[in-house]
Amino acid sequence: MSNDTSRRSFLTKGLAAGAAATVATAAKAATPDPLITEVQPWAQSFGDGVDATPYGLPTAHEGDVIRRNVEWLTADTVSSINFTPIHALDGTITPQGCAFERHHSGAIDLKKEDYRLMINGLVDNPLVFSYADLERFPRQNHVYFCECAANTGMEWAGAQLNGAQFTHGMIHNMEYTGVPLRTLLEEAGLDTAGDLKDKWVFVEGADASSNGRSIPMAKALDDCLIAFKANGEALRKEHGYPVRLVVPGWEGNMWVKWIRRIEVMDGPVESREETSKYTDTLEDGTSRKWTWEMDAKSVVTSPSPQSPITHGKGPLVVSGLAWSGRGAITRVDVSKDGGMTWETARLAKPGEKMALTRFYLDTEWDGSEMMLQSRAMDETGYVQPTKAQLREVRGLNSIYHNNCIQTWLVRANGEAENVEVS
Amino acid sequence: MSNDTSRRSFLTKGLAAGAAATVATAAKAATPDPLITEVQPWAQSFGDGVDATPYGLPTAHEGDVIRRNVEWLTADTVSSINFTPIHALDGTITPQGCAFERHHSGAIDLKKEDYRLMINGLVDNPLVFSYADLERFPRQNHVYFCECAANTGMEWAGAQLNGAQFTHGMIHNMEYTGVPLRTLLEEAGLDTAGDLKDKWVFVEGADASSNGRSIPMAKALDDCLIAFKANGEALRKEHGYPVRLVVPGWEGNMWVKWIRRIEVMDGPVESREETSKYTDTLEDGTSRKWTWEMDAKSVVTSPSPQSPITHGKGPLVVSGLAWSGRGAITRVDVSKDGGMTWETARLAKPGEKMALTRFYLDTEWDGSEMMLQSRAMDETGYVQPTKAQLREVRGLNSIYHNNCIQTWLVRANGEAENVEVS
Repeated sequence: MSNDTSRRSFLTKGLAAGAAATVATAAKAATPDPLITEVQPWAQSFGDGVDATPYGLPTAHEGDVIRRNVEWLTADTVSSINFTPIHALDGTITPQGCAFERHHSGAIDLKKEDYRLMINGLVDNPLVFSYADLERFPRQNHVYFCECAANTGMEWAGAQLNGAQFTHGMIHNMEYTGVPLRTLLEEAGLDTAGDLKDKWVFVEGADASSNGRSIPMAKALDDCLIAFKANGEALRKEHGYPVRLVVPGWEGNMWVKWIRRIEVMDGPVESREETSKYTDTLEDGTSRKWTWEMDAKSVVTSPSPQSPITHGKGPLVVSGLAWSGRGAITRVDVSKDGGMTWETARLAKPGEKMALTRFYLDTEWDGSEMMLQSRAMDETGYVQPTKAQLREVRGLNSIYHNNCIQTWLVRANGEAENVEVS
Repeated sequence: MSNDTSRRSFLTKGLAAGAAATVATAAKAATPDPLITEVQPWAQSFGDGVDATPYGLPTAHEGDVIRRNVEWLTADTVSSINFTPIHALDGTITPQGCAFERHHSGAIDLKKEDYRLMINGLVDNPLVFSYADLERFPRQNHVYFCECAANTGMEWAGAQLNGAQFTHGMIHNMEYTGVPLRTLLEEAGLDTAGDLKDKWVFVEGADASSNGRSIPMAKALDDCLIAFKANGEALRKEHGYPVRLVVPGWEGNMWVKWIRRIEVMDGPVESREETSKYTDTLEDGTSRKWTWEMDAKSVVTSPSPQSPITHGKGPLVVSGLAWSGRGAITRVDVSKDGGMTWETARLAKPGEKMALTRFYLDTEWDGSEMMLQSRAMDETGYVQPTKAQLREVRGLNSIYHNNCIQTWLVRANGEAENVEVS
């Protein structure tokens, strides 16, 4: 087959999914060699040896796929957030290297050898565990999402941040390995067969802020993990090395990093982090008490403002993420007309409890404007609400737990922007 | 609770899983502050801000958890291997940054914008796809292991490499996102409803070695992926950026990186990479033709030579990995006495097809020597063989497809070494 033949075959194939795109790309390619549009040339020299990257980083060509913070959002980067580049990712796993961070007093440096975890309070045998101790208890592995309660928080009052990374990127999804908190509480002499319905644990980190939070005992004994690995390897410093708490499905602020102490108590502490912060202001000015679970939510990651359509009309993959703190995602719908009509998306895999689910809508784009939305449903029957529905209950002054349907206006030129539908 | 109280409670709790370890660790801790053995001190200053790590790397404390090559194994690092630090990982996902590499002529630098994939040969419409074209076809996500056919190859003749990283580390396990090869072949006009039983595809990379391999059409149409993401993000350069072939369950050499061309043919090419290399020498000096599938296999990753037991007797977590190229792992057994008696390990999750499965044996160590082994079984009923069983068929001169049971001698001091059992 000559290159001419392949070119002709491709271009005369009127319905070929890629035809328009190839022409467009070829026209843009700034190469002097006309054959580059046809055949990938062979390398004429050696590439890097296996000693080039003892621990590897992304190629420089992907240098813009990084966590990013928003300068005006916080006064200082030690108490701030950066956002996962979800617009550029696919699948479900978030690499640790670009997984969002939230610190209240910066990411601290601890060594495994120095690490200690105390369990005290209303237990028969208060204990202090070293890291080596933790490794001697039976471990579990689970993929869970961790979402900041403030994710999408800037969008209450209107469409403000232009990009899925910034509107929805306070989330990551990793395979955590750790010891069930239940196991360690039992080791400390907690009678888990007893009446514990009024008992709580208070958890605090070793960073200067300590970030203390109260967790009802039922959750502590259900599925919380004392985790030391994420995606197979040690936690990164910024994710709580050497040990963090995992509270599946509940707001990220409770996933205490550099966890140093767990106190069993007969009530919640009502700490700063669960009163003046991380509570939800309602329309009447009062605040909801205890809103821990992350409600079902979804977002189209591509196309989106940072991931425009660069090809013409024809085949288009619409892709996004859905998740629920109450269990597995069972269905995601996608609308191209701002919620008037919906098509059911394809889930890449059956939803898993408290883990990100990837959805795709394999569709044809007619080249006209779209108001793209996605709507998640979980196994409890919960349906992700519109922004208007949320505002009816919550008003405009909330910060946390905004799980409303997101709208991207996709223009005829393929560019997208963050908009509201009335 | 005072620190004294907690200390006393812990130390007097004779059966506490961690007691011995804590004493040992505390004794070793070179801190001048006696309280360090009791309570993790709070940080007295801020840590890193969120702008410290736009793309993060592991903490320096984990600086030894890296891919490593073996200097004497190959003449040059551009045609060489480095090994995943499986002895230090847990869970199942391998981060791209420490996932093993094998190159035949080095890792080459390509840009998405310049990338082209040709499908030609016995198809009605030969096509050349740009990267942007590939993004317009329906995608799938799957976690698959990729194992080099030579993994464990140095062990045929005896116990040679002292560490799970080196005996079994030519493997990784990632969540791949890509387009089914079937879809692209159909796009190029292959009649997948026709009689294709004698048809093959020949696949080649854009690196100087090209690494051409023949794949029977049934496999090409079954589950092969043209993949562009691993663990959510773009492939790293050393893993074939921007596009590699994924051939689930089959030897890693077929997972062509920087894939440039796929030719449909009426027979195999019998290229260098499938004749003089990547064939298995039998005891009689002849070679097996076509041994693509990776047989069921497992290894204890901890304790192991690079991951000794550092605590005394008592609770011990034995952990390892199991996998099969023929489907899901259904059971893993662990022996402490070189295969005389076996205990069934706990699988962290039900096995998934052609993906790593993590197993644990939560046990008590009496402090005496162990001959640790693991034995995997898959859904086809296949049982991982002993080295003696393999040698009966394959002799001593093979390189590839060594899936025999591995033995670690764990000494009373907790150190481990690679040994053979007769």
